[in-house]
Amino acid sequence: MSDPLRLGIAGLGTVGVGVVRIIRQQAALLSARTGREITISAVSARSKGRDRGISLSGYAWEDDPVTLATRDDVDVFVELMGGEDGPAKDATEAALKAGKHVVTANKAMLAIHGQALAELAESKGLTLRYEAAVAGGIPVIKTLFEGLAGNEIKRVMGVMNGSCNYILTRMENSGKTYQEIFAEADGLGYLEADPQLDVGGIDAAHKLAILSSIAFGTKVDFDGIQLEGIERVSIEDITAAADMGYKIKLLGVAQKTGRGLEQRMQPCLVPETSPLGQLDGGTNMVVIEGDAVGQIVLRGAGAGEGPTASAVMADVCDIARGWSGSVFGQPAASLETAQSAQSQAAAPYYLRMALVDKPGALAKIATVLGEAGVSIYRMRQYEHDAPSAPVLIVTHKTTHAALEAALENMQGTGVLAGEPVALRIEEV
Amino acid sequence: MSDPLRLGIAGLGTVGVGVVRIIRQQAALLSARTGREITISAVSARSKGRDRGISLSGYAWEDDPVTLATRDDVDVFVELMGGEDGPAKDATEAALKAGKHVVTANKAMLAIHGQALAELAESKGLTLRYEAAVAGGIPVIKTLFEGLAGNEIKRVMGVMNGSCNYILTRMENSGKTYQEIFAEADGLGYLEADPQLDVGGIDAAHKLAILSSIAFGTKVDFDGIQLEGIERVSIEDITAAADMGYKIKLLGVAQKTGRGLEQRMQPCLVPETSPLGQLDGGTNMVVIEGDAVGQIVLRGAGAGEGPTASAVMADVCDIARGWSGSVFGQPAASLETAQSAQSQAAAPYYLRMALVDKPGALAKIATVLGEAGVSIYRMRQYEHDAPSAPVLIVTHKTTHAALEAALENMQGTGVLAGEPVALRIEEV
Repeated sequence: MSDPLRLGIAGLGTVGVGVVRIIRQQAALLSARTGREITISAVSARSKGRDRGISLSGYAWEDDPVTLATRDDVDVFVELMGGEDGPAKDATEAALKAGKHVVTANKAMLAIHGQALAELAESKGLTLRYEAAVAGGIPVIKTLFEGLAGNEIKRVMGVMNGSCNYILTRMENSGKTYQEIFAEADGLGYLEADPQLDVGGIDAAHKLAILSSIAFGTKVDFDGIQLEGIERVSIEDITAAADMGYKIKLLGVAQKTGRGLEQRMQPCLVPETSPLGQLDGGTNMVVIEGDAVGQIVLRGAGAGEGPTASAVMADVCDIARGWSGSVFGQPAASLETAQSAQSQAAAPYYLRMALVDKPGALAKIATVLGEAGVSIYRMRQYEHDAPSAPVLIVTHKTTHAALEAALENMQGTGVLAGEPVALRIEEV
Repeated sequence: MSDPLRLGIAGLGTVGVGVVRIIRQQAALLSARTGREITISAVSARSKGRDRGISLSGYAWEDDPVTLATRDDVDVFVELMGGEDGPAKDATEAALKAGKHVVTANKAMLAIHGQALAELAESKGLTLRYEAAVAGGIPVIKTLFEGLAGNEIKRVMGVMNGSCNYILTRMENSGKTYQEIFAEADGLGYLEADPQLDVGGIDAAHKLAILSSIAFGTKVDFDGIQLEGIERVSIEDITAAADMGYKIKLLGVAQKTGRGLEQRMQPCLVPETSPLGQLDGGTNMVVIEGDAVGQIVLRGAGAGEGPTASAVMADVCDIARGWSGSVFGQPAASLETAQSAQSQAAAPYYLRMALVDKPGALAKIATVLGEAGVSIYRMRQYEHDAPSAPVLIVTHKTTHAALEAALENMQGTGVLAGEPVALRIEEV
């Protein structure tokens, strides 16, 4: 049996406490599986006095995470504070400079500073691991990085923010508006302190940027993501989509095209019978498509004490086994700069609009679509009492440019009652 | 960049050819990801002359896999011949004795000889890896062994034989009998040369035995599996189960109970809305439940050239990175001997029977069930033309012993028209 692997843990929120619990309760299992004892030398958090439901008396306390990260009795710095800058980044850099491996759950830090941190770690021959940063307990980093290492990855997709999926699922099941369910979720404590991180799609986009880098051998490029949150998803669209056999999900999609790397995080329609369409509530799902393996679907809890701590421990165990490797799947210096491509790939679209109740209104819309080269696959006009008629259209595959042109030209027809809604249908 | 990692590949069927293709086509990707070139020194197969659609002229040919496995220019022996004994086992042993790492897709060999091979490998400080042996392209070994290393595993379940799932799905969709669809699948080449390996559940049970060992730290115990194939699944049961909201799957389940390790591979009912219930056709799914992570679901292609070769390459890449470790998740010498427990855990059951068309017949059955302590949850009696009445019963959770007693006592009631069918309902 080798020497113990000694951790310094900064951040004792839900996840930090979960990690401490696993290390205590599963000590025998962990040493059987890794061949080493895993111990905690020291911990750090903002408030020393807070009751966290576990005793920390066996561990040294450091007020300053940088001091913790550089202690002589720490082999691995476990960063669970969060935040893209500030103490998390300072302590991570200090740890790497002091020759410590790092395990982090910090998606924001990696999405923004991942390249610099990876270069620093690799220049020192150290490991920086972050399974917990993406999709909680689902071992998606390991799957992409290692399990599918023999594949050229074609596409990565995922529902990676449980709060958004909870809100969309609750809207559908209750028939209530976005505003009502947002307030409900906020009241239940399901949202980040800054809810925009969740509902604005930022948290999920951080995760997508990390997955893209591993999948396509490009530098993490958060700014290259075409980003739209769920705030504008209406209950009318959820209901209408369901009526056409679809669900609306905040879906992240990354794929390499002839024009570059396309990364989107936006509300999309997916078939209700697909695994993504069947994903209700706070669960996460990641779909990976490789040239050899075909499609792999991974599903599990995307957040919470146990799942996230489980992912942190996977990284800790790999380090205990002495396994090291590039941070993003290949040496950071060899990662290409992503050529950000706006979505050029053709896709079917869902359109919802209200038309003034005049004969020939629908024909005008059909004409405009046809002239722009947008072909109609299915159409449904609802019976109505109001002076405008709700119309749903599912198009055949079309480019975004053609669709934009059609939407533009509709404005001149005089038959629109309000703004049309257009949502991409992702083929899954 | 380190020295190249040199492979010797024995077995050039579908999977072997797939591995050769990946190594050629993805050479740049593989060396970027592992830091080493991956090369093939020599190959071996039964027939040298056969056209495999790829040129093998760059590789030395060995008629004898044992000779291949021990060549000086081979670092890793890749065993893709199959068969629990014979050349596969001889060559694997020879490779390990000669100091070569081994990668294999051979579930039968591991299910029967896994413990001895693991002890041999570990005594030499070598790695024996087998991601391709279970669920094809799905990285389930890696997930269980590494991704969930911080978890005490509670239960592992899976649909791990695509041919059986294809047959059951086709029966449901077509309304045809088992015999008709079996003949169809056989004609399409979907079944093993010995179809009993598929439809008898043996292939899937081999896989379950391997997963159990990693999950629970026990020696592989294929003989301890309670095994039943799909030959007795009738179209009547598939239709009736669907009517009650269930699907019938050949489901493997392993869990540790107070009495020991329970391993079952048998047709079970699962809710049609669960991920397992929604798994149609030849796809595989593995569900893993850990104390920290909760439930993780993995889905993908369970067979075929690309998916299986993808899994082989994951193992090869890990070895190229210099990662070694215990064969079954912890040192083979520390694995416990499994105490095989027949299913004692209570479960709901599905019962289908035909009753003679006499007043009070159903009451007699209900009485017998009640006397045995089996409580009825739902019951459905169908209208009928025949002199007997079809009846479906879903019980509350009951022990297998109580159910057996009830079925026994039904024989004395004089109201049964034919043998009742009883199938376990797995709570997923």
